[in-house]
Amino acid sequence: MLSAVKLAREIEAGGTSVEAIYETCAAAIAEREETISAFTHLALDEARKTAENSHGPLFGLPLGVKDNLDTADMPAAYGSPIYEGHTPAADAAVVALARRLGAGIIGKTVTTEFAFFEPGPTRNPWNPLHTPGGSSSGSAAGIAAGFFPLSLGTQTGGSVVRPAAFCGIAGFKPTYGRLPREGLKVFSWSLDTIGVFGKGVEDAAFGAATLTGRNWRVDGTSPGAPHIAVVHTHLWKEASGEMRQAVETAARLAEKAGAKVSTVDLPGIFSDAFAAHQVIQDHEAALALGFEFDRHAASLSQVLRETLAAGREILPEDYDSAQETAREARRSLGDLFGEFDVILTPSAPGAAPNGLGSTGSSIFNRIWTLMGVPCINVPGLMSANALPLGVQLVGAYGQDRKTLLAAHWLEGLLKKHG
Amino acid sequence: MLSAVKLAREIEAGGTSVEAIYETCAAAIAEREETISAFTHLALDEARKTAENSHGPLFGLPLGVKDNLDTADMPAAYGSPIYEGHTPAADAAVVALARRLGAGIIGKTVTTEFAFFEPGPTRNPWNPLHTPGGSSSGSAAGIAAGFFPLSLGTQTGGSVVRPAAFCGIAGFKPTYGRLPREGLKVFSWSLDTIGVFGKGVEDAAFGAATLTGRNWRVDGTSPGAPHIAVVHTHLWKEASGEMRQAVETAARLAEKAGAKVSTVDLPGIFSDAFAAHQVIQDHEAALALGFEFDRHAASLSQVLRETLAAGREILPEDYDSAQETAREARRSLGDLFGEFDVILTPSAPGAAPNGLGSTGSSIFNRIWTLMGVPCINVPGLMSANALPLGVQLVGAYGQDRKTLLAAHWLEGLLKKHG
Repeated sequence: MLSAVKLAREIEAGGTSVEAIYETCAAAIAEREETISAFTHLALDEARKTAENSHGPLFGLPLGVKDNLDTADMPAAYGSPIYEGHTPAADAAVVALARRLGAGIIGKTVTTEFAFFEPGPTRNPWNPLHTPGGSSSGSAAGIAAGFFPLSLGTQTGGSVVRPAAFCGIAGFKPTYGRLPREGLKVFSWSLDTIGVFGKGVEDAAFGAATLTGRNWRVDGTSPGAPHIAVVHTHLWKEASGEMRQAVETAARLAEKAGAKVSTVDLPGIFSDAFAAHQVIQDHEAALALGFEFDRHAASLSQVLRETLAAGREILPEDYDSAQETAREARRSLGDLFGEFDVILTPSAPGAAPNGLGSTGSSIFNRIWTLMGVPCINVPGLMSANALPLGVQLVGAYGQDRKTLLAAHWLEGLLKKHG
Repeated sequence: MLSAVKLAREIEAGGTSVEAIYETCAAAIAEREETISAFTHLALDEARKTAENSHGPLFGLPLGVKDNLDTADMPAAYGSPIYEGHTPAADAAVVALARRLGAGIIGKTVTTEFAFFEPGPTRNPWNPLHTPGGSSSGSAAGIAAGFFPLSLGTQTGGSVVRPAAFCGIAGFKPTYGRLPREGLKVFSWSLDTIGVFGKGVEDAAFGAATLTGRNWRVDGTSPGAPHIAVVHTHLWKEASGEMRQAVETAARLAEKAGAKVSTVDLPGIFSDAFAAHQVIQDHEAALALGFEFDRHAASLSQVLRETLAAGREILPEDYDSAQETAREARRSLGDLFGEFDVILTPSAPGAAPNGLGSTGSSIFNRIWTLMGVPCINVPGLMSANALPLGVQLVGAYGQDRKTLLAAHWLEGLLKKHG
């Protein structure tokens, strides 16, 4: 895997060159892309060429862009046959931003169909018989396979944190709205959030910090021990034994390293909010993908077609009430965060499931996406079958830096332990 | 002008036909479009043809669509030479919705450049030497000219309420987010709100109710007198003598008809929020239009280029602080609305200014857009130079029906008075 922070430093110090970085990526891609299928479109040469004429803090760094984000010079199919051969008229705002900051767009990466459930062909670099997770499958797998040091994904349920967990990398979903969303093929406007993948926490933080212009970088910092709340959620019984153990291990290591660790039960409003997530998502998706449903229903997967049909039946008053539940849960969460710095909770029910038929479950992610709060997968632990086992840190709304610092700190412990 | 409610009723009763409605529109367009320039693209025949094969509550009704909303079968230039000849891959969500409900898209209507300040060629149907207002210039002028009975616009500052005022029609901006925004060329995601134009309040309400599936229709209702707060805002001195008089006239008529009318001073946070509107808008526009600024700066108007350049200099912390000011003002406004049903305030500083060089000022609209609350221009009063003089009603967040009922009630009084 390539560390974005390390590469950026080496470029600045003259220790490596754009040419050398692209050669490393090209070699990894040549060796493994046939197995991994991270890309829908590869633009190695174009990215290298534009990189040579660009400058900025992301200078020389190849960036993978999930194929639900528009690029003016590459096809964008959004994981759907409906958009096969479609080339957008403009770059997505976050893509324009990345280019301006010096990044080269190395290619578009595989997304599930419209970032929902129907999987693409991508395989898990740790074991190609397993899913890499989704919906940001290619952006996560490509980091783990060493194809690029940074990539962009999006999360509506668990589409950044889960694939990061399955691929053993850092996947950071900032506070809702911190990265601009124009040019994203929207699934659910109240939920869709752009996130950043990197090898480790400092890499994802570096990418997100640079793109947002915020002081989120954690490389070179030595943060103090945070106050951690272990949160099981009402879904704890859905977590595998290994995952429960992973959360306990992380908590124990943190405590030993000086963190105050408490176990916190979420109030009942959070299981209501879990249900509200689906009402909001499905109602909005039915509207956002109205054209595709009305004109191209036969080209939609069955799961999406049924979801959109059901979403269309959701009454405005039930949607409003789901939004009110979400607001109430946000207020409650805000109050809870008075007592601790970050929440420690599973990134997924377990390690990456076997097979490519599903990208796994987002049940441990949805509520945090709905809350709009920063979440990050902290890599470092492994399952018995040699797959990454990720734990998640969740921060308070707008406390992205504090969340990243805690994740950086915890990652150090997990690495030493691993 | 064509009343959408009347036409829908007549179609249902067999009193008119799709053919007859389109003939009426076609005749008005043939007579006046050369002067008015409401359309960027006219699709009379296609709309009529698809209308004959459709059904639903908007069956037979021609709909004008502002040219910052995508349609899969018509060009969308967003008021910018950058997008000349561009045809989107999909219908905007609200366009798909309108088609599904039976409407025919009669054409795309003139918007200012990216719905910002640089005017298009549209003229005011009441006096072609005057602006129709903007940015939804064609959608408002086309209603006033009898080109179509319903149209869609968008408001970021005052782009629905102001052109409605200048054109003497009803322009309704619902609560933020009530009409889905996918396929809108976004200028500022925290502000952009889709709105509906119609001849009168009941027509705009009918369109918005049908599109949202909410009980917002007010035709056939006899609402009671509301409790009205007259709000001058800190910009009252910017209103013309005629406009101040119009607000006073509306207040006096309402009081005589049984309304409780009080004059309410807004707390100081609202002038801070007025300033915050621009910080939020410009910061977001610089991100949303990053591609256009980076790649096509020479094709942008000077005013937009300068605004985007300035927007790029706004620091994230100043943006965050502007958003915090907005949240605080929203809470304060929510509290104020405990004391009354609707706010009565100018729709614009006065009647439509002379000339086409500017679409007028949005200073009396921006704060309400930022608050995300429903606003509507109530037509009926006239200026000394025979131009419409609109007053605005503003409701509480989510109280769209109550706002529309009050507007329907007030419109009845203004009509009788006029």
